[in-house]
Amino acid sequence: MPRTKGYAPADAMVSPRFSGIRTFMRLPHREELDGVDLAIVGVPFDTGATYRVGARFGPEAIRSGSALLRPYNPAQDIQIFEHLSIVDAGDLRVVPGYLPESVESIAAGAARFFESSVIPVFLGGDHTISWPLLRAAAATHGPLALVHFDSHSDLWDSYFGGKDTHGTPFRRALEEGAFDAAHSIQVGLRGPLYGPEDLALSRDQGLEMITGPELHERGVPWTLERIRERVAGRRVYLSFDIDFVDPAYAPGTGTPEVGGFTGAQCLQLLRGLADLDIAACDLVEVLPAYDPAGITALLAANLVYELVSLLAMRRKDDAARSARA
Amino acid sequence: MPRTKGYAPADAMVSPRFSGIRTFMRLPHREELDGVDLAIVGVPFDTGATYRVGARFGPEAIRSGSALLRPYNPAQDIQIFEHLSIVDAGDLRVVPGYLPESVESIAAGAARFFESSVIPVFLGGDHTISWPLLRAAAATHGPLALVHFDSHSDLWDSYFGGKDTHGTPFRRALEEGAFDAAHSIQVGLRGPLYGPEDLALSRDQGLEMITGPELHERGVPWTLERIRERVAGRRVYLSFDIDFVDPAYAPGTGTPEVGGFTGAQCLQLLRGLADLDIAACDLVEVLPAYDPAGITALLAANLVYELVSLLAMRRKDDAARSARA
Amino acid sequence: MPRTKGYAPADAMVSPRFSGIRTFMRLPHREELDGVDLAIVGVPFDTGATYRVGARFGPEAIRSGSALLRPYNPAQDIQIFEHLSIVDAGDLRVVPGYLPESVESIAAGAARFFESSVIPVFLGGDHTISWPLLRAAAATHGPLALVHFDSHSDLWDSYFGGKDTHGTPFRRALEEGAFDAAHSIQVGLRGPLYGPEDLALSRDQGLEMITGPELHERGVPWTLERIRERVAGRRVYLSFDIDFVDPAYAPGTGTPEVGGFTGAQCLQLLRGLADLDIAACDLVEVLPAYDPAGITALLAANLVYELVSLLAMRRKDDAARSARA
Amino acid sequence: MPRTKGYAPADAMVSPRFSGIRTFMRLPHREELDGVDLAIVGVPFDTGATYRVGARFGPEAIRSGSALLRPYNPAQDIQIFEHLSIVDAGDLRVVPGYLPESVESIAAGAARFFESSVIPVFLGGDHTISWPLLRAAAATHGPLALVHFDSHSDLWDSYFGGKDTHGTPFRRALEEGAFDAAHSIQVGLRGPLYGPEDLALSRDQGLEMITGPELHERGVPWTLERIRERVAGRRVYLSFDIDFVDPAYAPGTGTPEVGGFTGAQCLQLLRGLADLDIAACDLVEVLPAYDPAGITALLAANLVYELVSLLAMRRKDDAARSARA
Amino acid sequence: MPRTKGYAPADAMVSPRFSGIRTFMRLPHREELDGVDLAIVGVPFDTGATYRVGARFGPEAIRSGSALLRPYNPAQDIQIFEHLSIVDAGDLRVVPGYLPESVESIAAGAARFFESSVIPVFLGGDHTISWPLLRAAAATHGPLALVHFDSHSDLWDSYFGGKDTHGTPFRRALEEGAFDAAHSIQVGLRGPLYGPEDLALSRDQGLEMITGPELHERGVPWTLERIRERVAGRRVYLSFDIDFVDPAYAPGTGTPEVGGFTGAQCLQLLRGLADLDIAACDLVEVLPAYDPAGITALLAANLVYELVSLLAMRRKDDAARSARA
Amino acid sequence: MPRTKGYAPADAMVSPRFSGIRTFMRLPHREELDGVDLAIVGVPFDTGATYRVGARFGPEAIRSGSALLRPYNPAQDIQIFEHLSIVDAGDLRVVPGYLPESVESIAAGAARFFESSVIPVFLGGDHTISWPLLRAAAATHGPLALVHFDSHSDLWDSYFGGKDTHGTPFRRALEEGAFDAAHSIQVGLRGPLYGPEDLALSRDQGLEMITGPELHERGVPWTLERIRERVAGRRVYLSFDIDFVDPAYAPGTGTPEVGGFTGAQCLQLLRGLADLDIAACDLVEVLPAYDPAGITALLAANLVYELVSLLAMRRKDDAARSARA
Repeated sequence: MPRTKGYAPADAMVSPRFSGIRTFMRLPHREELDGVDLAIVGVPFDTGATYRVGARFGPEAIRSGSALLRPYNPAQDIQIFEHLSIVDAGDLRVVPGYLPESVESIAAGAARFFESSVIPVFLGGDHTISWPLLRAAAATHGPLALVHFDSHSDLWDSYFGGKDTHGTPFRRALEEGAFDAAHSIQVGLRGPLYGPEDLALSRDQGLEMITGPELHERGVPWTLERIRERVAGRRVYLSFDIDFVDPAYAPGTGTPEVGGFTGAQCLQLLRGLADLDIAACDLVEVLPAYDPAGITALLAANLVYELVSLLAMRRKDDAARSARA
Repeated sequence: MPRTKGYAPADAMVSPRFSGIRTFMRLPHREELDGVDLAIVGVPFDTGATYRVGARFGPEAIRSGSALLRPYNPAQDIQIFEHLSIVDAGDLRVVPGYLPESVESIAAGAARFFESSVIPVFLGGDHTISWPLLRAAAATHGPLALVHFDSHSDLWDSYFGGKDTHGTPFRRALEEGAFDAAHSIQVGLRGPLYGPEDLALSRDQGLEMITGPELHERGVPWTLERIRERVAGRRVYLSFDIDFVDPAYAPGTGTPEVGGFTGAQCLQLLRGLADLDIAACDLVEVLPAYDPAGITALLAANLVYELVSLLAMRRKDDAARSARA
Repeated sequence: MPRTKGYAPADAMVSPRFSGIRTFMRLPHREELDGVDLAIVGVPFDTGATYRVGARFGPEAIRSGSALLRPYNPAQDIQIFEHLSIVDAGDLRVVPGYLPESVESIAAGAARFFESSVIPVFLGGDHTISWPLLRAAAATHGPLALVHFDSHSDLWDSYFGGKDTHGTPFRRALEEGAFDAAHSIQVGLRGPLYGPEDLALSRDQGLEMITGPELHERGVPWTLERIRERVAGRRVYLSFDIDFVDPAYAPGTGTPEVGGFTGAQCLQLLRGLADLDIAACDLVEVLPAYDPAGITALLAANLVYELVSLLAMRRKDDAARSARA
Repeated sequence: MPRTKGYAPADAMVSPRFSGIRTFMRLPHREELDGVDLAIVGVPFDTGATYRVGARFGPEAIRSGSALLRPYNPAQDIQIFEHLSIVDAGDLRVVPGYLPESVESIAAGAARFFESSVIPVFLGGDHTISWPLLRAAAATHGPLALVHFDSHSDLWDSYFGGKDTHGTPFRRALEEGAFDAAHSIQVGLRGPLYGPEDLALSRDQGLEMITGPELHERGVPWTLERIRERVAGRRVYLSFDIDFVDPAYAPGTGTPEVGGFTGAQCLQLLRGLADLDIAACDLVEVLPAYDPAGITALLAANLVYELVSLLAMRRKDDAARSARA
Repeated sequence: MPRTKGYAPADAMVSPRFSGIRTFMRLPHREELDGVDLAIVGVPFDTGATYRVGARFGPEAIRSGSALLRPYNPAQDIQIFEHLSIVDAGDLRVVPGYLPESVESIAAGAARFFESSVIPVFLGGDHTISWPLLRAAAATHGPLALVHFDSHSDLWDSYFGGKDTHGTPFRRALEEGAFDAAHSIQVGLRGPLYGPEDLALSRDQGLEMITGPELHERGVPWTLERIRERVAGRRVYLSFDIDFVDPAYAPGTGTPEVGGFTGAQCLQLLRGLADLDIAACDLVEVLPAYDPAGITALLAANLVYELVSLLAMRRKDDAARSARA
Repeated sequence: MPRTKGYAPADAMVSPRFSGIRTFMRLPHREELDGVDLAIVGVPFDTGATYRVGARFGPEAIRSGSALLRPYNPAQDIQIFEHLSIVDAGDLRVVPGYLPESVESIAAGAARFFESSVIPVFLGGDHTISWPLLRAAAATHGPLALVHFDSHSDLWDSYFGGKDTHGTPFRRALEEGAFDAAHSIQVGLRGPLYGPEDLALSRDQGLEMITGPELHERGVPWTLERIRERVAGRRVYLSFDIDFVDPAYAPGTGTPEVGGFTGAQCLQLLRGLADLDIAACDLVEVLPAYDPAGITALLAANLVYELVSLLAMRRKDDAARSARA
């Protein structure tokens, strides 16, 4: 077990990875935030789902799928816990069946992480949660640049007359200025729509968009370059909807879209974002009831791991810069 | 294929039972109610669920599970379609994610069946739906006697501060006088509770209650006698929560309780209710995502079939009485 | 490992039960019948199925499910392989997609067991196979008394105009005199029918019938007595359709019927038939594709084991009688 | 909801996509063909299957998997229902267990679509159905050019002595001149064979062939070019066997072959066929019993959607041409 | 939420039962034992398994299945947390792949609970673990009376030459005097054996035995009486192997035996043991990989709940007695 | 059916591929090795697994998944059974729960194949088995060059203090000189590690390593070239851990790692190794309990088929060379 900065996982060479309470990466479960740099936070809310439902069990599944993760990320050459003290802070309070109440409750619950300068990594939950999470982030950081991987823009105005579903969070967030559209980008959009106006939603709202077919055609390096340019050094909220991935790799989700991306492509994308200044992120729409082999949760846990690795790398660089200064 | 009175299933001797669009029992799908005695009606709503969720796919699964049903019920010696003209009327409109709106929408959608003197048999959906359905029934029939099979009383006042969940429908319905507690009975209640006051909920609200352990100990004939006495000839709304059944027989449900009843016991119970004057009924809480072998939906379809058989028997008796008169 | 008479399973104290090629009970796979008393024979045919299909994989699944079986049956106090030399003879040749050809091929393939005085225990396949198997048995033994556990009579005249499906085998067999209706009995019939005439099929054709509800009401000992009286000492062909069992215990079947029997009741029934003179038997309609937990195949393997135990007990009694004489 | 030409799906902004009877894309279920341009037609036949069986439930699963589809295809910029009036016409009559009778019945059932100038899109069923479907198409259109995506040539002469299995449909169709080999092409063939003569089957019978490894090596654009050249503007019957796709993307099929193609590649292939003059098409070999996560049916529904999009694009072009003329 | 004595579950009326880290019943996760009366302790060891393997994930599954449990047990009229302060103490250390090392490690890990007068309830793990757990119990309490529900005696001397498997724990424990055979009883034994000597194992070793068929025949009250007589007021170690239950109710286990008991019978048995003086208990052999619908883990969680209820009742009685004295 | 040299599969044109006892490719099951060139050998051992467990059922699943394989490999233009006489030799003896005993037993059981000049292809089992298999190979052939496809190096020194797990086999084998590190190579390594020293394990021990990301970036032809150079014409032991493959293609494994390779890439890799002089090979870590759609076992069976094809090609070439000489 390597030297660690603060809170770190149980040692797998002593206690086997299948043992113990299922926190993310077998981290300590702590509500308190003193001495914590980064917190894993569940948001088991799915009342906003418009088709399949069950993402309330997403945090449990991702935690279970994370048991195999080890502290050193060789692809990034980073020993995570030398640079970050991390805990699993449990779940935010939600009110199942009540969208507006839950939006309030989630925003309130998320606030303390930002106020304590702890970077939160949220495990959804359906995509509705990004709205209150962006709101909470903006309260501390001001409107962030949004980097959004998804097969849907989630910018619809309403669904069945309702304004708060998982098809509308970024529209709601935009209306209240919770993120900065001018430096935001959506990646991977694809699948049937209601009409051509849906395709224009991103740009109509001032966001940049890279569709799924474009990403297939132009490739990952081009896409990374576009993201970097768009963000232009600003602080970022990164939101990853697991339906960005192809159903072969992530069947356990609410509105799967065929023609998506492989696990390896997702890793390559996230690993390419090392120079982003990420203030918070979420991974949403994992539905374990539709994931018989558990591969969706496993991939989700690994994607969260890559996000955590990015944050550790950034912290390491900051420390190196401070040391040099 | 026997002589039929009106709308009836496709002939399985001509078109195999696995073929065709999945309506209940392969009945005609018709929205119009002229010439219809009984309608199967889906209510794909599950926003009231407090634990597992996904009963919105219940109507689809029950319809699929009903393909094997044949028109003659030998246990009751009734040739159903000689006495009833039946259609599958599709699904009521619901607004996923919005409890009050859906309650209104379901009550409005159900009204037309009662107004047209068509007996509706509703396929849930979570148990929240019984509240608007009882309200719609009462608007035509006045408050009905409720016969309720379930492992939970669903009489809680609120859940997480919310008043409209699937744990509260009968409390809400009572408050608005939508059924007649004094002639109502709940059967099969069991499983852990929050406190002894929960156990008293039924009686506090004026309903009779037979717990699961009582039913195990006293048996089906005693229970049937108690139901008949309680109802005392009044018009009945029968509500069947599939979690009344043991999880071995019905794993696909939202809040399963062990120590339940077998499929054979359920059949025996429903078959024993031939003298009830049923005005409407529902079967709720089938969650196909938790039903890998499909046995929950199969059993649910068969229970609906027994309910339909009861109604055909009643219609046959009425016709015989009229003929004699 | 006990003393054995001839062919017997691999020793589980030496080679673990999960190892080795999947024959029934890990018996030797031998086509030759010299030195063999009893043979397990697969009949992977399912073209006669009228609803779900896939019983062609039934023999594979039952063999796999039999790995846990051990040689001594304590409920019957019989050390099976002291009295019987048993092999797994592989599968009969079938022609998928071709009913008449397969019926011929199965009858031809089954003949050699009867001709060699080897008792065959057949693993289906759909219930169509009982027709050619009865024909082959009758060629050696004359028409046998049929003891038939099922939720369907399988006595229909035709299905979709076809005469050879799994709903018709006993009608076809009767027409050619392949069993002796006057000493035959069907047990467990239940579920919706096309009309009251279906209920009369058994008796119209001269068989006795005990319905499912009757068995539930009267119990196992009464049923066993009825079977014994009906058979009246004659040689028996025993056919067991796994849909006799309740779907909770046997979900993996083609036309499941709710309200069936438990595994324990099945064991009690078969164990009660020790005085029958069984010439051959089959266990049919196991569909592994609908058996996610494998419990159907496990139960089927155990029911075959009980049948084999009955045959061993008979052989032991015969030997004792010979010794005394 | 956009302006529509005739029959179109239920409006998902009003009734949620999980509600209602499961027709394809939630289209009206109509047997009558007046006012219809294109019909979705199930062919639930699987008696021709030589290995796994159960494609009789394919149409049900594809319909269920199609619920998420929306009317506008952004990859092709086509608003489908502005150009085509589409219904779900239910299933053709089949006779399970009887190959020759079913071939006749399917051909007869398919004829009326061609005779009414309605473009049929067939949902299988096993691949046997392409034979009668090609026959019916030829009766109206003359022998069509066949574009065939599959991992098997399905050109064997016989199987187990039988001539009508899902391994032989195109051989049978060729023998009766039901398609035009000289302008036909098979794409994606791969996997173990009986001998080198199998590899030559396509060319021996006068068809062109692109093997799976060739497609992997040369890519989609080259393949599209080859298809276009081969077809040379003729009317086309397009047949898509889901086992063309890799088992990771389409596990639910009867004779899966590893080393196949991704969902994204399938979309790219079908989207590239916009200039084909398609008279009819089928998508076959979806077996839901082997599709625990439902991704096979989801992909199949999307592939059908792409085929329908091609037909809408063609209709739009024709209309534009007419308008210009 | 009722008044509680000490550590108790999260309040389900505030935080929904699907939220939070998966400890047993959503109890606090604490390693420290001050202020604790009873601890739930996982023992994720399965190297002793002789057939299916995977019980190392049993504790995770049982914890997940326990989320629905509520604090008041109406069948026993006990408000658990008024009488007991309970924590989830996590898992004991095990060494997968190493039987002797794990036996030592488990015994050592269990010791501190007994030494601290905390009643431990262990979640297995395969049945091997009962051996070191009995050893640890005996070190504090002296040899306990064993009440053992199982379909196997687990008294074999060795398996494949190995002495430490899940078929041998009670033999090993007996050899070192870790429990008191003269007041011990095994209940539910059934299934095929190697020979009649296996049937005699229990009595040869001085234990009493009630076979599965006996329990079926004589019923639960008779069995309870026999247990009480045998135990005769001594301190008890209760061990419950989930394969005591029928595979329909508990498919997810390592060596399932058909012909078992229902969930309701298990509840009735455990609820009938209120006067036992239980010093420790275990529930073993839950294998989630074979439990697709999760009903095994759900039942296991409920059986643990009944054991905890018994302990709360005993504590309440003791307190009442003290108060009266 | 083509001309065959010796032992060959049952003829699928006569007996359907779903019929018969499940040996690999429906080959004869023979323990004797006379007249045999190549033997398929199961090694159902999984006590070395450090996370998920159940590879003891791997040989059964791979055999079942191999039923579809046909004798001619068109990608390599080889008619396998013209050049090789092949049997399924059943399983080696293992002692579940006992690592050292099993290592001895496996080495002893494997020896006879090498001593008889029969090429063994081993079906695991967890990766621990490669250690005794390499030892047995070295006893006859001297230390072989190892070509190892895996996402883990399996070169750790110990796990939980244990030296014999599936994370350590190649370390143990190296210590006893059982293979030749200087001509060995590991391909596909990826996933989180304990620290940077883990990444250096391969090279520290003298092996060459190609990581997963390198293989993604450089491609298959470059990798094949590296393998060939490394091996440099020496005799090879090829070990293929199914977790080399991406979880979308091979979910059924013990320690899955995302970001892996497709089935098509695996085929391309193995097909590119035709000039290797393979003395033995294994395919390990298939866990059917985590493989609900069976695609892992199907792919594994196909990869074994490609290995067998390589051996047939080599034999053909040798024969041609001999003939020329």
